[in-house]
Amino acid sequence: MSIRNSKWSKREKKIARKAFDKAYQREMEIIKKEILNRLNKMKSVDQIWDLHDFLSAKRNNMADKYDYRYSMLITVFGRLLAEGYISEEDLCGLDDEKLTSIKNISRFKK
Amino acid sequence: MSIRNSKWSKREKKIARKAFDKAYQREMEIIKKEILNRLNKMKSVDQIWDLHDFLSAKRNNMADKYDYRYSMLITVFGRLLAEGYISEEDLCGLDDEKLTSIKNISRFKK
Repeated sequence: MSIRNSKWSKREKKIARKAFDKAYQREMEIIKKEILNRLNKMKSVDQIWDLHDFLSAKRNNMADKYDYRYSMLITVFGRLLAEGYISEEDLCGLDDEKLTSIKNISRFKK
Repeated sequence: MSIRNSKWSKREKKIARKAFDKAYQREMEIIKKEILNRLNKMKSVDQIWDLHDFLSAKRNNMADKYDYRYSMLITVFGRLLAEGYISEEDLCGLDDEKLTSIKNISRFKK
């Protein structure tokens, strides 16, 4: 079965939602720390616009990455696993086929 | 003479540049403080996008406001005086006609 057509059980949907939200929260906390870091290191007030550019890019990137459609979730989790925003433990409880696909995608995205 | 066609002496240009830069620096410092304030009060990471919206609006506003064309400077200074980013002392040395126009615009903008 194509990874886009995988069926998600109620239990799997719960696991997926939790892992997805955790990754999002984690990545947003990192963005917040980066803003503070940039503010602390700022030498000229004009760098505020560099910070704005950084946030514009991150916003696009996050909107693109965090796509919670079931047809996209395996690819999304593959990427999040590759980037370290989720661990294999976060996905524990998904069926073997999904886990294998996620890990394969993760290896490819690294 | 229309305020758009005012002639600026070399000395006046120097005074204008200094007042303009000082106001810009002052306003940018306030924006920087506001970013820190918003980060400190942030209850949810999603508010990072509110901060991004705030910076987008400020960037447009600053680009619009800080227009250093001599044909625009009297209006610009009128607004900056009204908003408190420059004082009358910062403009000391400009000719009386310019000062009167700036103060008139300032009263109108308040």
